[in-house]
Amino acid sequence: MTLSESAALEVDQLPDQLAVDTLRFLAADMVEAANSGHPGMPMGAAPMAWTLWSRHLRHDPADPNWPDRDRFVLSAGHGSALLYGLLHLFGYDVTEADLRAFRQLGSRTPGHPEFGETPGVECTTGPLGQGLAMAVGMAIAERMSNARFPQITAHRTYAIVGDGCLMEGVSHEAASLAGTLGLGRLIVLFDDNEITIDGAVERSCADDQLARFAAYGWHTVAVADGTDIAAIDAAITEAKEDDRPSLIAVRTVIGHGAPDVAGTAKAHGAPLGSDQLTRAKTQAGWTLPPFTVPEQLKQTCANLAAQGAREHVRWLTRFADQDPAQAARFHRAQARLLPDGLRASLRGIIGTAPRATRQSSQACLEVLAPIMPELVGGSADLAGSTGTNYGEVITRDDFSHRAIAFGIREFGMAAILNGISLHGGFRVFGSTFLVFADYLRPALRLSALMRQPVIYVLTHDSVAVGEDGPTHQPVEHIESLRIIPNVTVVRPADDAETAQAWEAALERTYGPTVLVLSRQSLPQLTIGSSDANPTIELVATGSEVALAHEVAKLLRATGDRVRVTSAQDRTRFTPDPTVTTVSIEAGVTAGWEGTVDLAIGLDEFGHSGPGAEVLAHLGFTAEAIARRIQG
Amino acid sequence: MTLSESAALEVDQLPDQLAVDTLRFLAADMVEAANSGHPGMPMGAAPMAWTLWSRHLRHDPADPNWPDRDRFVLSAGHGSALLYGLLHLFGYDVTEADLRAFRQLGSRTPGHPEFGETPGVECTTGPLGQGLAMAVGMAIAERMSNARFPQITAHRTYAIVGDGCLMEGVSHEAASLAGTLGLGRLIVLFDDNEITIDGAVERSCADDQLARFAAYGWHTVAVADGTDIAAIDAAITEAKEDDRPSLIAVRTVIGHGAPDVAGTAKAHGAPLGSDQLTRAKTQAGWTLPPFTVPEQLKQTCANLAAQGAREHVRWLTRFADQDPAQAARFHRAQARLLPDGLRASLRGIIGTAPRATRQSSQACLEVLAPIMPELVGGSADLAGSTGTNYGEVITRDDFSHRAIAFGIREFGMAAILNGISLHGGFRVFGSTFLVFADYLRPALRLSALMRQPVIYVLTHDSVAVGEDGPTHQPVEHIESLRIIPNVTVVRPADDAETAQAWEAALERTYGPTVLVLSRQSLPQLTIGSSDANPTIELVATGSEVALAHEVAKLLRATGDRVRVTSAQDRTRFTPDPTVTTVSIEAGVTAGWEGTVDLAIGLDEFGHSGPGAEVLAHLGFTAEAIARRIQG
Repeated sequence: MTLSESAALEVDQLPDQLAVDTLRFLAADMVEAANSGHPGMPMGAAPMAWTLWSRHLRHDPADPNWPDRDRFVLSAGHGSALLYGLLHLFGYDVTEADLRAFRQLGSRTPGHPEFGETPGVECTTGPLGQGLAMAVGMAIAERMSNARFPQITAHRTYAIVGDGCLMEGVSHEAASLAGTLGLGRLIVLFDDNEITIDGAVERSCADDQLARFAAYGWHTVAVADGTDIAAIDAAITEAKEDDRPSLIAVRTVIGHGAPDVAGTAKAHGAPLGSDQLTRAKTQAGWTLPPFTVPEQLKQTCANLAAQGAREHVRWLTRFADQDPAQAARFHRAQARLLPDGLRASLRGIIGTAPRATRQSSQACLEVLAPIMPELVGGSADLAGSTGTNYGEVITRDDFSHRAIAFGIREFGMAAILNGISLHGGFRVFGSTFLVFADYLRPALRLSALMRQPVIYVLTHDSVAVGEDGPTHQPVEHIESLRIIPNVTVVRPADDAETAQAWEAALERTYGPTVLVLSRQSLPQLTIGSSDANPTIELVATGSEVALAHEVAKLLRATGDRVRVTSAQDRTRFTPDPTVTTVSIEAGVTAGWEGTVDLAIGLDEFGHSGPGAEVLAHLGFTAEAIARRIQG
Repeated sequence: MTLSESAALEVDQLPDQLAVDTLRFLAADMVEAANSGHPGMPMGAAPMAWTLWSRHLRHDPADPNWPDRDRFVLSAGHGSALLYGLLHLFGYDVTEADLRAFRQLGSRTPGHPEFGETPGVECTTGPLGQGLAMAVGMAIAERMSNARFPQITAHRTYAIVGDGCLMEGVSHEAASLAGTLGLGRLIVLFDDNEITIDGAVERSCADDQLARFAAYGWHTVAVADGTDIAAIDAAITEAKEDDRPSLIAVRTVIGHGAPDVAGTAKAHGAPLGSDQLTRAKTQAGWTLPPFTVPEQLKQTCANLAAQGAREHVRWLTRFADQDPAQAARFHRAQARLLPDGLRASLRGIIGTAPRATRQSSQACLEVLAPIMPELVGGSADLAGSTGTNYGEVITRDDFSHRAIAFGIREFGMAAILNGISLHGGFRVFGSTFLVFADYLRPALRLSALMRQPVIYVLTHDSVAVGEDGPTHQPVEHIESLRIIPNVTVVRPADDAETAQAWEAALERTYGPTVLVLSRQSLPQLTIGSSDANPTIELVATGSEVALAHEVAKLLRATGDRVRVTSAQDRTRFTPDPTVTTVSIEAGVTAGWEGTVDLAIGLDEFGHSGPGAEVLAHLGFTAEAIARRIQG
């Protein structure tokens, strides 16, 4: 059958019950085979997922990377078996063998959906709440792309969330921003099953979720019976017509159809067991062997996929009609290619006057803005302080700008940046104070796991912050970020190194980069070449490189031969065994200890006071350090 | 004047305008003297703070530790100058000299309020949102204390929050639980000034905060004019009468009275400058020198403090009327004294059958419950999985239980635990999976900074978690927790070490302890004594201790003499320079690297698959490790 031959599908002829039962039992079969997993969510949420995928989701399973596809995020990632079932039905490259390998080592059906492991999986979910926030990011990216490429961007973002997602704080941060920005193309289905792992939701949560989301400026609607496909369909249709983001609360029964455990926490996270599964199938009149998709349903899904393929073809026609320069811009951004002349532009910021590296970084952003229109980003309400002023901010009425006011929502910001990056077409950055990296850490870990090149601009990077005191003074943070796999941490010392760090961050396309920047002014380090045949090597990062140069002067005055090394990315530093190596960093010594002969750092919390006094109090003066080295 | 001589104060005779102006100008003077700080919040919020402290707050400045005092939390911690002004006015040990030393090194008036540094400061605030969550914890503690000691516990918890607090996700987690538990004695004043650091709140947040909190089950009320003391007073009175937690949104003007910057972001975080401050004082008719408190106000505040002292005396009388055993129990909990026989009870859990250390820990909790009624805690919805089932959970109708269902809210849980601990009278624990330590990290840092003995029970501690995959498999987490100052991390290997770890955690009264526990079953390590004159020392933690014993067997088979050391608390491990030391831990090698001769660990993300297969895939079998050591 060619695309042109396939007739349009009549919605009232869809084999809905067959599809729902198939999804339920595929999921239960997968969990049973793995003897591990979560059958309850898929069995309860299968009708809403089927309704969405059969009647609304615009996608082309033959090309999971079609830029204008609708996005679907399973925020309740423990229900992965439902997603894999959908991908299998609709013809993504997820085979029956893949389903049978659910949760096995090396399979493309891991325990939670993992971006990059499975065609059609839009993001990694499982850490609750973040899927919703990434969906918000995708919906923002869609509007920002639409403002730049209106002829070829008009898709929607759908998500299914559970109670856990909505209890997590990040749901608040993301939903609030979504309401503020009026993301009308974002539609969230809430699997309202009243059950969490430990029991009834009411034990810990009495939120009126619809009222809560209405307070964020969302359109809300409830579906009383989560098996009522017509009602779910009507609610989604209504949501598509509303210009606000939508929350559809669908009342479901966890483990629907499992005779003994349906509606209880027991259905959440353990296999049903063969006896219970057999009885569930009998009760549903299901007679097919495990992992079987009925032929009629296969045909239906193939037809639905063909509809999506036709949409894709129409889109390609529109794409070809674009202005070629516009098309080239679109392509370059999608491919994450850098503009010509990037290095020269960035090196143009290098000056001679002392300034904070946060200011050097601000200067980098100013030269990047005109040459990389695809670079977008913002701050968790510290744009001015972090050197990330970036022009006008997007509003619900104008997404053509490149800056985003994330509000005082570090975690939401980072998860949203992941979503924008996953959507494609943009490079992204976000900023806050380094000490608040703790607030966004769960999303930074997902940037790393999903290999997304999110750039984190984290400033005020030591106790030199001063008067704001220990709550605002990072101590353990640099090291805590270095040890996350696939995270690059760079702490530049001056203009030149900051320009280089931005270049490296933009060149890195397979993982996040953290730029660690100073609040206080720093000299431009044209000073101090190294001595020949040094006996001492001072290894420092960021603001401590200038300090190391001062220490070197003192050491030389008493006859030492000294080399100063800026280890802005410590993973690239290898100690020289022929000299005495001393590290100087205003943070914990862990990570340096053992690697160098003497690690000078701070293994305690800071204090409120003028920055220079705090540093002196903690032994971070050239004199005190020189004494320690010589003593 | 003795207590009995002081007449009751007539509310309508209070010098309100004088008090408000004093608080405003004390704050502005402090920021001006420090040339650093946040004048805007104190100038806008002074009337609500004065109304609360003059008419409602029940406290005795002469004894900031009176257990039944009302608690006051300045969640918008950057407004610290307002709090210090209040403490100074009401006679806490915060002198004019202290105010003049605002934000200076070693002063008791640091940039943000810090618990333990200043009499009358109930908790450390500044990391936004956490003050609100700690207030929720204090309000829970009050109800739990009331259920145990009804004659001597009946106080309220008040907080002032800003827009930043309400945007942060933790505000959602904490407010939702407060609504669920019906914490009617919690009253939160929202400094609704429509400004954040970067500009107008509407740029990033369009929440209807009253509707949002109503959706959580809170009583809400708005005060249209934040200088209207009668209206604020009426709203607080109404809130006290309502049996739900209350949010009072008070519309204020940031930097009220500063001619050029009032109502703008410029008033937020920088000194007004002497010109602007002078004009503000002129405009207000303020003629006193900086840092001056008018005599009339001093007298008023002394009278108000005396009222509080009389309340305290009445409370002491009630306390003396208590049953002596009851009083002794109250005292012991307040003093954090441990019960007799603790060690013997804990050692009673030691068995011979293999089990996961999360189960060993569950057994510890079961012996602790009857002997430490002051030990309360719960889980972020993983009580069953983490071995922290702890009896019935508290409900809005019954706070006599010892378990708390925190919901899927790790960060909220940890901040609330801090609040309960700060309140006093309880020892606390909370549990989740180790990988989700990232979600609660900002509050754990505050546990450490505030020296609160919160016990974190973090289980599923390595890639051995298995099928749930890399989102659920900690890799960098153990090390990331070890490097936070004042955090003790213990990873026990079996029943005996788990009992010992619980004992040490309870004995530690000046900082948090993290118990890192396995999901998988582990043997009881009566096996494998060490060889005499070893040449190789295997240092392992937790589940890897048993593995190290297996490795030792293989090494011995080829003639090596081996010692196996369990370094459950790594800070207590010192390498023996006379042997080859090899560390074995299923997490990042950072922290071990350099300290030992060979660090065997995992510096990459894990994979979904059966735990043993994942471990084998990543080289964590006895054979592979023995080969690496011998190779």
